[in-house]
Amino acid sequence: MIQLALIGVGTGNPDHVTLAGVRALREADLILLPRKGKAKSDLVDLRRLLCRNLLDEAAQSRVVEFDLPHRERRDDYLGAVDDWHAAIAEVWREQMTRHLPRGGRVAMMIWGDPSLYDSSLRITGRLKGLGQDGEASPAVSVVPGITSLQVLTAEHRIPLNVLAEPVQITTGRRLRERGWPDDAASVAVMLDSGGAFQALAPEGLHIWWGAYLGMDKQCLIEGPLAEVGPAIVERRAELRERHGWIMDVYLLARTPLLSRPVE
Amino acid sequence: MIQLALIGVGTGNPDHVTLAGVRALREADLILLPRKGKAKSDLVDLRRLLCRNLLDEAAQSRVVEFDLPHRERRDDYLGAVDDWHAAIAEVWREQMTRHLPRGGRVAMMIWGDPSLYDSSLRITGRLKGLGQDGEASPAVSVVPGITSLQVLTAEHRIPLNVLAEPVQITTGRRLRERGWPDDAASVAVMLDSGGAFQALAPEGLHIWWGAYLGMDKQCLIEGPLAEVGPAIVERRAELRERHGWIMDVYLLARTPLLSRPVE
Ligand SMILES: C[S@@+](CC[C@H](N)C(=O)[O-])C[C@H]1O[C@@H](n2cnc3c(N)ncnc32)[C@H](O)[C@@H]1O
Ligand SMILES: C[S@@+](CC[C@H](N)C(=O)[O-])C[C@H]1O[C@@H](n2cnc3c(N)ncnc32)[C@H](O)[C@@H]1O
Repeated sequence: MIQLALIGVGTGNPDHVTLAGVRALREADLILLPRKGKAKSDLVDLRRLLCRNLLDEAAQSRVVEFDLPHRERRDDYLGAVDDWHAAIAEVWREQMTRHLPRGGRVAMMIWGDPSLYDSSLRITGRLKGLGQDGEASPAVSVVPGITSLQVLTAEHRIPLNVLAEPVQITTGRRLRERGWPDDAASVAVMLDSGGAFQALAPEGLHIWWGAYLGMDKQCLIEGPLAEVGPAIVERRAELRERHGWIMDVYLLARTPLLSRPVE
Repeated sequence: MIQLALIGVGTGNPDHVTLAGVRALREADLILLPRKGKAKSDLVDLRRLLCRNLLDEAAQSRVVEFDLPHRERRDDYLGAVDDWHAAIAEVWREQMTRHLPRGGRVAMMIWGDPSLYDSSLRITGRLKGLGQDGEASPAVSVVPGITSLQVLTAEHRIPLNVLAEPVQITTGRRLRERGWPDDAASVAVMLDSGGAFQALAPEGLHIWWGAYLGMDKQCLIEGPLAEVGPAIVERRAELRERHGWIMDVYLLARTPLLSRPVE
């Protein structure tokens, strides 16, 4: 019997791991650490660092690295994602049966929190055939972790929502396609391939932007969108060039986030 | 000079505190712990438990409890909130100047994460007159913590968002007033005084509900809204009666959250 723990480990700052996360890592019989191609090797290094900081030598010897399959660049995005998830599930399955033929506790370190734009739970749903009879599915548990959005708001010292108002979390793609979502007073944007906020009329909007949150190279910019929008686009391109990759997230609001409720 | 750390401590499970949170609590010269009236004394007890679990005796002796002012029940909700925030800021100011007349590090334990439907940052914005000249404002830092929403998704083992789709976080009040938000494939509802989901046509909707998340009395219900909605309303009333208070949160989705992207 395999017990699989998906452990949210934050987005770069090892101190953002919870006590429950540390414990789950220490108790694991196998820690699977996926390698993701050269561009994002920083992210793999950060997981290695986490293991070195949090685990003793015995536990560190239970870390096994493996290569993640690549996602095809195809026209049907969802179809390509579907095939990719199937391929990842197959690799996970292989690793688990190879290293834990009689079962045990497997830990996977999930970037940020497993609930937020992450597919580990969907991939987990495809894991079958782990038992000796090739039929059992693993028992899954989730350990929550700090998301990139929470590091963004913490570093800017802002709330996510305007007082008593709804907030939308969306993707760069959706913001471009649909503009400002009707019912939200603030909007958080993830998975933006760059400057999707340019699709909005900037008047009256404020932006809080962050890249490489929780890491040494963290970068924050904040201000009226009309003023700082172009600077963010420029800075993003520059940083991406310099580091070979970038991850950024931002919050937009119409009303000042911290203003008094009546004015 | 006062340095004020707002520390997210999760929603009941002491293991959900991060390493950064533990450190910030241990390093504080003063830990302010607000008391909130009888009904919610469980929540104060949980903070006390956290201090006992995480701090040595010396650090525990730096915990100071104080009574939070009450919010008036008035017709202008936002006006009442505004006055209440001003009153809280005044009490914080008093406590800090009394216990740290020469400045130092103050820690406040914030339920969940300080970014999510929490007013500590707004109240902090009103803190003036802490220095000896009565003019300085505190230097504020935020330590992110696990939100109730993350415990909800972790315990149900679900993502917050449908693959690549936006998610809206809203309040019970808004859900009642406006119904399903146009652009969202899933909706998380907080601050619901009870069963706001009854304002929606339940057909095709699925709900994942959780109360007292992270605590011993945690309760989870999940299923098609048409089937389990009435059971949730009943269970909620019963639990509230039994414990004298309740906090619950839920996620609603139209598409199965974990389905494959193409079908
Ligand atoms: C596949 S999603 C995973 C999100 C992750 N599960 C979380 O909880 O933050 C990747 C997106 O998250 C955001 N992100 C993740 N880590 C980040 C970081 N350290 N700094 C800025 N944005 C980050 C970016 O918007 C990126 O495109
Ligand atoms: C004032 S908001 C504070 C939210 C908090 N900052 C967080 O990060 O979860 C209070 C609302 O959060 C949700 N909540 C907080 N703690 C909870 C718990 N332990 N179980 C269920 N819901 C909770 C409920 O919807 C409640 O009405």
